[in-house]
Amino acid sequence: MSAPRSIAGALRRAGVPRRRLLPRPSIAPIAINSCKSRPFSITSVTEADAPKKIQLTAAAYPQIKRESKFAEVTEEHVKFFKELLGSDSALVDGVTADATDDLAPFNSDWMRKYGGQTRLVLKPENTQEVSKILKYCNEHKLAVVPQGGNTGLVGGSVPVFDEIVINTARMNNIRSFDEESGVFVADAGVILEVADSYLAERGYLFPLDLGAKGSCHIGGNVATNAGGLRLLRYGSLHGNVLGLEAVLPDGTIVDSLSKLRKNNTGYDFKQLFIGAEGTIGIITGISIICPPRAKAVNVAYFGLESFDHVRKAFREAKGQLSEILSAFELMDGRSQGLVRESTGNKQPLEGDHPFYCLIETSGSNAEHDIAKLEAFLEHVLGEGIVADGVLAQDETQIQSLWRWREGITEALSHLGGTYKYDVSIPLPELYQLVEDCKARLTEKGLVGDDDSYPVRAVVGYGHMGDSNLHLNVSVRQYNKEVEKAIEPWVYEWIAKRNGSISAEHGLGVAKKEFIGYSQNETNVKLMKQLKNLYDPNGIMNPYKYI
Amino acid sequence: MSAPRSIAGALRRAGVPRRRLLPRPSIAPIAINSCKSRPFSITSVTEADAPKKIQLTAAAYPQIKRESKFAEVTEEHVKFFKELLGSDSALVDGVTADATDDLAPFNSDWMRKYGGQTRLVLKPENTQEVSKILKYCNEHKLAVVPQGGNTGLVGGSVPVFDEIVINTARMNNIRSFDEESGVFVADAGVILEVADSYLAERGYLFPLDLGAKGSCHIGGNVATNAGGLRLLRYGSLHGNVLGLEAVLPDGTIVDSLSKLRKNNTGYDFKQLFIGAEGTIGIITGISIICPPRAKAVNVAYFGLESFDHVRKAFREAKGQLSEILSAFELMDGRSQGLVRESTGNKQPLEGDHPFYCLIETSGSNAEHDIAKLEAFLEHVLGEGIVADGVLAQDETQIQSLWRWREGITEALSHLGGTYKYDVSIPLPELYQLVEDCKARLTEKGLVGDDDSYPVRAVVGYGHMGDSNLHLNVSVRQYNKEVEKAIEPWVYEWIAKRNGSISAEHGLGVAKKEFIGYSQNETNVKLMKQLKNLYDPNGIMNPYKYI
Repeated sequence: MSAPRSIAGALRRAGVPRRRLLPRPSIAPIAINSCKSRPFSITSVTEADAPKKIQLTAAAYPQIKRESKFAEVTEEHVKFFKELLGSDSALVDGVTADATDDLAPFNSDWMRKYGGQTRLVLKPENTQEVSKILKYCNEHKLAVVPQGGNTGLVGGSVPVFDEIVINTARMNNIRSFDEESGVFVADAGVILEVADSYLAERGYLFPLDLGAKGSCHIGGNVATNAGGLRLLRYGSLHGNVLGLEAVLPDGTIVDSLSKLRKNNTGYDFKQLFIGAEGTIGIITGISIICPPRAKAVNVAYFGLESFDHVRKAFREAKGQLSEILSAFELMDGRSQGLVRESTGNKQPLEGDHPFYCLIETSGSNAEHDIAKLEAFLEHVLGEGIVADGVLAQDETQIQSLWRWREGITEALSHLGGTYKYDVSIPLPELYQLVEDCKARLTEKGLVGDDDSYPVRAVVGYGHMGDSNLHLNVSVRQYNKEVEKAIEPWVYEWIAKRNGSISAEHGLGVAKKEFIGYSQNETNVKLMKQLKNLYDPNGIMNPYKYI
Repeated sequence: MSAPRSIAGALRRAGVPRRRLLPRPSIAPIAINSCKSRPFSITSVTEADAPKKIQLTAAAYPQIKRESKFAEVTEEHVKFFKELLGSDSALVDGVTADATDDLAPFNSDWMRKYGGQTRLVLKPENTQEVSKILKYCNEHKLAVVPQGGNTGLVGGSVPVFDEIVINTARMNNIRSFDEESGVFVADAGVILEVADSYLAERGYLFPLDLGAKGSCHIGGNVATNAGGLRLLRYGSLHGNVLGLEAVLPDGTIVDSLSKLRKNNTGYDFKQLFIGAEGTIGIITGISIICPPRAKAVNVAYFGLESFDHVRKAFREAKGQLSEILSAFELMDGRSQGLVRESTGNKQPLEGDHPFYCLIETSGSNAEHDIAKLEAFLEHVLGEGIVADGVLAQDETQIQSLWRWREGITEALSHLGGTYKYDVSIPLPELYQLVEDCKARLTEKGLVGDDDSYPVRAVVGYGHMGDSNLHLNVSVRQYNKEVEKAIEPWVYEWIAKRNGSISAEHGLGVAKKEFIGYSQNETNVKLMKQLKNLYDPNGIMNPYKYI
C-alpha cells in the first residue's frame, strides 16, 4: 500500500483541521471483483434469492393482454428451429411431450421482478442464424424477445407471455481490435467485462461501465443505450458506437459495421437501434471507438451539508478537474446509512452528513492528477463547500469507496421491495424530487421506523454529472397505497420540469405507459411510425416500449 | 510574450541537438482573427474572387434534369410568402415584373463552384414561419433548399434549378445557456463563432470548431454533421447534440429540444436529422452540451521523415498526451510548400520534411500540460520519431502555426482548380492514397512543373486523429482527362479499404452518385425508405444526397 497522499498538507495550507485519511481500521477492504462485477447472472441470483417468488408480468400488469394475432409455438416450429440451430441451441419446454429444458432463467430477470411464460429459447451462433430465425418468425407471426445478459431494470428482455426468447449468449466473438485507432468490433453477445478486460490488456478502455458489467452483453448495452458511471467523461453510445450489424424483422441483415470515426454518407440509420430496446430488430455486432485506458485513477469521497453544497462542489470539480474528471456521483445520507446497516461496514467518514459525493479522476499522469485533486480539495475544504473527505490510497481503497455508491441497490434489495425511479431533472431541482416525495409520503402517514408503516426510507442517489437521479422508495412490502401515492405524481413532477421519466434504464414494460410524460404527442406518433415501418407485424418485443 | 518554454531542456536531456524555438524573425505573426475566422461570407468572397465565373450546377451535371413534378414559382406564391414574412424576408427576382432583389449570394457558395437558379429566397424569423412555408410548399409541390451560412463543400445548400431557398440567417437567437450543466440552446441560424464567443465569456466551449466558423450556422453544422478540428477530443455531434427542433415537409414541428444529457424514452428520432443535409426537414433549433473551456492551450509543429513516423508520433501522443490532446493534424511537405509560396511566409522549420504535424493540447493546468508536452517531445525527438519541431509561446504563435494547417485550402484556391476528396481510410493506409494518386497521374503524364501539364500538385492533409484525409489535386484548370483519371478510381480505391468517400463534407450534389462506394445496397434502400417516409413529395433539397 502506498504512503498517504499529501491531501493533509493541502488541508493544512487551507487552514482547516486535518482530515482523516484512508486507510483506517474501521473500513474493511472489499474484494475488488465483488465491487464492479457483481454476479448478476440469473443462476447466482436465483440461488441467493430463491425464496422470493416471481410474479408473472401478465399478472402484475393485468391491462396487458396477449395479442391474438401472434401464433403459438407448435411442434412444427420447434422442429424448424432445432434443425436450424441444433438441439442445444433451441431449448424447449411445454411444447412437445419430451421437452424438458429449464427455461426459468430466461423467463425472469436478475431482480426476479418480471416473470415471462416463454416455452422456446433460441441461442443463435451468428448473424445468419438470427436472420433465418427472424424471417421465419415474421412469416409465421411468432412474437420474439431479444435477450442479452438480462440485467435490465424495466423488464425489457423478459417475455410477457409466450414470446420466443432469442438470446445472444452464443454470439460472443471479439471480431477485431485496431490498436492504432482504438476501434473494437465484436459480436453482440460479448460480456461487457470480457470486452473491457480484452481492451485493458491492450491499454484501452470500453467507454461504458456499469454495475452489471460481469453479466450484461454489449449488444444489450447498445440496444438500451446504457449510460452508466462514466458517461460524464466518455460520452454517450450515440457518439461512441461507430457501426452496427443488425437484423430486421424480415430477416434483412443491415451491415453498417463501419470502423470509421467519420462517415458522412447518408442518414445515420444505425442510431435508431441505439436505445430501441430490440423493438425494430436485433443487434448482432457492434463497432465502437475506445479511448486509451487511464494510467492514473483516483477516488475521493466527501460529506457535504446541503444539496447546494453538492452543486457548488460539482461546479468546482468541473472547473478544476476538468479533463480528468471521470465520475461525480451523489449519495444522500439515508442511502449511505442503508449500506452501512446492510454490510456492517463503518462509513468512510465519521459523523453523519446529509449528502455524500464520490469523485473519480482518470488521467495519464498520476503526479499531475494528484496535484489537481489536492488543489481542488484545498479549495472545497477551505471554502467550506465540502465538510469532510477521504482520498483512496490504492486500488483496494478505490474499490472500497465505490462500494458505498454501488452497494446501494443491493442494500435496498435486502430490505423488501423498492419502487425505483431513474430520472433526469435539471440540476438545480435534482434532489428536490426526493424531498418532495418524502414529504408527500410522510404527510400521508406512510413512512415510519416500525413495521406498521409500509415505507422504510425514501433515498436519492445517482450520476450528478449527468443530472441523473435514482429515486428509490424502500418499502417493507409492495403496497398499492404507496404506489398510488407515488404514481403518477412523480411523473407529473418530472414532466413539469421537462425532465425524463427514464434517464438510462429505458422503457421496457415498466415505463411504456408513461412515455407521454417525457415525449409529446408528435414525438410518440413519429416513433410509432418508425416502429410500424420496420416491424409491421409487431413481432419484435411486443407489449413494451411505445 | 512569455519566456521560451523549457522544451529546449527536454531536448538536451534527450541528447539531441537544441531545436529552434518560436519566436524567430522569419515567421511573420498572423493576425489572430484571420486564422480561425476566415471571412467565408458570400460578399467578401465575391469581392475577392470576382473574376471567377460561376458555372451553373445544371450545366456541370447535365445528367440531372429538373423534375417536372415540381411547380414553378408564381406571382400567387410570392404574394403568399410576402404576406406571411413581409417583403424584406421574401426576396424575389424574375417572378414578377417589379422584382429586382439580388439573389446571386444565395445562388452560389463561397467557393463559387455551384450555381443555382432560384428566383425566391425566404428568410423566416421563427419556427412557426418555417412550418407555414414548408406546409405551403409541400401542398403546392414547390421544391426547397434549406440554407445556412452556405459554407459547405459539396453544393448541398445551393439550388440546382429554381428551388426556393429557405435561409436561416434571421433565426439567430440564443435561447438559453445553463452555466451549471453547460447546456446551450439556440436557433439554427446562430453563427458558430457567435455561439462560441458567447460561451467563451461564460467559460465554456462550443464542442465543434472549423475554418468557416465566422460564417457557418450551427443548424447547418448539425444538418451536415460537421466534424472539424477537434472531434478527436470532444466527439461527434451525434453524441453532443441533446435535442433538436425541426420542421418536417408537411409543416409538423418536431419539438425534441431536450436539455437532458440522458433521456431513454423512445427512438432517438433527432439523430436522423444530424447529417441529413436538409433532405427530411429543416432544423430550427438545437440543444447541445458544451464542455468547460480549456484554461491552457499549447500548439506544437513537427517535421517528420515518413508516414510511418507520423503514425508512431500519433500513437505516442495518444498515449502520453491522452486526455489533453485536442488536435493531431497531418500536412504533407507539398501542402506546406504551397502555403509558403502563397503567403510568402517562411516555414516554421528550416529544411524540407516530407511530413508535418500540428499537435494541440487543451487542459485545465498550464504547468501540467507543458510538463506532459515536454515529456512527449523529449521522447519523440529522442527516439527520432520526430525530426524537428517548434512549440508556440503565445496565442499569436498558436494562430501562426494553425495557419500552416488552415491555410492550405486558401493556398490551393489561388492556383487554379482543385479536385477535392474528403475521405476516411484506416490509418495504416491513410497516406497511401496520396502516393497512389500521384503515381497514377504521373504515369499518365498529367503532372508537371510547367504549364503544359494540367496537374500542378497532388497533396494530402487532414485530421490524422480521426483517420480523415483531404486528398487535393491542384490543377492549372479543370480538365476532363484529369477528372477521368481520378474518378471513379479514387472511390474504388477507398471502397476496397472500407473507407468513406465523404468523411465530413457530406454528399450534397457532388457525392450523390458515389454513395454506393461507401454504403451497400441494403443501406441505400433503407435510406431511401426513410426519405420517402418523411418527404413523400420529394420537395426537400432535391437532386442531392441519395
